[in-house]
Amino acid sequence: MQFSIEKDQLLSGISAAERFIASKTTMPILSGIKFSAYGSSLELSATDLEMGIEYRLPAQIMEEGDAVISTKVFTDIARKLPQGPVMFRRKEGQITVEAGDFRLNMPVLEAGDFPEVVPPETKPILKFPKETFKNMVKQTIFARAEDSISRPVLTGELLEARNGRFHVVALDGFRIAWRWEEAEVPDFSVIVPGRALVELTRALSDAGEESFEIHTGRNRVVFCTENLVMATRVLEGKFIDYEQVVQVEPRITAVTKTDALLSSIERAFIVAREGNKNNLVKFRIGNNRMEVSAETEMGSVYEKVQCETSGDELVVAFNARFFIEALRSVEKPEIELKFAGEVGPCVIRPRNSENHINFILPVRLRSEDY
Amino acid sequence: MQFSIEKDQLLSGISAAERFIASKTTMPILSGIKFSAYGSSLELSATDLEMGIEYRLPAQIMEEGDAVISTKVFTDIARKLPQGPVMFRRKEGQITVEAGDFRLNMPVLEAGDFPEVVPPETKPILKFPKETFKNMVKQTIFARAEDSISRPVLTGELLEARNGRFHVVALDGFRIAWRWEEAEVPDFSVIVPGRALVELTRALSDAGEESFEIHTGRNRVVFCTENLVMATRVLEGKFIDYEQVVQVEPRITAVTKTDALLSSIERAFIVAREGNKNNLVKFRIGNNRMEVSAETEMGSVYEKVQCETSGDELVVAFNARFFIEALRSVEKPEIELKFAGEVGPCVIRPRNSENHINFILPVRLRSEDY
Repeated sequence: MQFSIEKDQLLSGISAAERFIASKTTMPILSGIKFSAYGSSLELSATDLEMGIEYRLPAQIMEEGDAVISTKVFTDIARKLPQGPVMFRRKEGQITVEAGDFRLNMPVLEAGDFPEVVPPETKPILKFPKETFKNMVKQTIFARAEDSISRPVLTGELLEARNGRFHVVALDGFRIAWRWEEAEVPDFSVIVPGRALVELTRALSDAGEESFEIHTGRNRVVFCTENLVMATRVLEGKFIDYEQVVQVEPRITAVTKTDALLSSIERAFIVAREGNKNNLVKFRIGNNRMEVSAETEMGSVYEKVQCETSGDELVVAFNARFFIEALRSVEKPEIELKFAGEVGPCVIRPRNSENHINFILPVRLRSEDY
Repeated sequence: MQFSIEKDQLLSGISAAERFIASKTTMPILSGIKFSAYGSSLELSATDLEMGIEYRLPAQIMEEGDAVISTKVFTDIARKLPQGPVMFRRKEGQITVEAGDFRLNMPVLEAGDFPEVVPPETKPILKFPKETFKNMVKQTIFARAEDSISRPVLTGELLEARNGRFHVVALDGFRIAWRWEEAEVPDFSVIVPGRALVELTRALSDAGEESFEIHTGRNRVVFCTENLVMATRVLEGKFIDYEQVVQVEPRITAVTKTDALLSSIERAFIVAREGNKNNLVKFRIGNNRMEVSAETEMGSVYEKVQCETSGDELVVAFNARFFIEALRSVEKPEIELKFAGEVGPCVIRPRNSENHINFILPVRLRSEDY
């Protein structure tokens, strides 16, 4: 194997690939990036067995071949190389990397031992704009469970098409974050591990095109652009019927400025998090205002936030962190909050928007907290 | 106590003061900032007993008094306050903080228990430009010992005036970093704890003036500007005669571009740090070039750096990290390196500069490393 590639091209490939490398593994081959130089392009592959990436780059191939290079030393050196072309030359078990007056020699790992990253046959199910999808993930992923031994499916995010809409949904048993967009595609439904989805959307940023395709095959989901293919295993299981659950009958509805309510809850959270009651923040809603308060042994905070209310006055408490994460995901200046009651959920939508829904269950107050 | 202060003023004071707070302490009072409202200004004080700060801010005082406020919750909330005036009102053991529609109530700590931050009587010894001093510290402090149980004085930095020059020096037994400037002041010599010096120079950035004064008194060093007073204890002990030590008879001298040599050693370091031989990087100097190389089981690197040499060819090895830190502190495009021999030091100066000196001892090579 011998090829030459521009340093900046090499770096973009390495930066994308190295995030898919197993951080802790007993298989040394997984700590490497596979370099495959065939035809007129170089392909970099990396995988931790759960997810993987193949990244194609333009390169000048003098001699076809492949090699797996351990990332431990190599990626840091690549970042420090002088600008210009970088020459790779494999000779048996060694690789030589040259750039300007600099030369590196390293042992290589055998490419034949490298696991399959992407299943060979997959079926396309959706073509979708990249930026819109990235935003849909960003606006929902915070609501997945970080860890769930009893229900691992909750650590994933649901991607599904139903009745001409494409839905992205995360939920953890206490809250739901749900975004959808119109998309004329056949119905499908997969649950993708959250960590993989974060890496996949991050790597999509590096791809040049506007759109990407989602494929499925062999219990895997595959994201493709022209020079990028990423695969992840899917999670087995089912989400609750989120569309049904968020249909609540409000006891009181409030319309307010997103930023004003968010800032107020952020201030209350600083006191609330010092207690051990689920970051408990209390809302008194009614008469065109929301009173936000929290109290722990560190002190107490109280604040009035202007809003338009309609319905019966209500006192209800929530985990401040859930509200903060939901409100930070809203990109519109105004929101509508529907509160179902003391022990019922709150459903939050940007005002005049239907396709971005947050659902949060309350924390039940004891009688002395009223 | 009752006063009103603009949020941005308050924040600048809190940000400076909180860095002087004891991070781990068995004295709760030290986790607080003391607010003293007298006359027409508010003074914030904080100390961890080793070092301390007093920061004066303009404020509207309605009722004089003082209080110590725990920083645990308060500083985070202060950062999130709405813009505009912030009102503080102490009533017995409670403080109320109001900004716009927001209100915080907290218990206060008794100001009478707060330790003295700055000794009451000090003697001025030097007035000096702030930015120049900050740079002198930045260009030397990396060479102090992080930790030295046998010689704690090496964790400090020497500030001294001798024969019309003001010197800033750090050394750790393996290297010396030394900067000086002309300054017509009487002779003095103090060793200041490194950690305190970092915080002091950082806090100086916030002060408005161009210059500051150094005072001494009661085994303390005090840095003053118009609105800022900071004190730290001094370290007992003596530094070696650095001026004498750096006078070396070179076997070979090299003049080269600072950046080119630095980049080359940074690349070699990535391989060198994987070994357990003190980040060993080897230089072969002679015939108008320096050959930089390193080898560990991860691989080997080799690079030629152009330079002008005069003297006998030499192979000598150093800890790459010491060289990297020294070269990063150089602000000039070219440096002159004087190498004393296989077991002798290297002395580095920016070309045509006398007042910035780095001295580095080599790592002795075994015969098979030549």
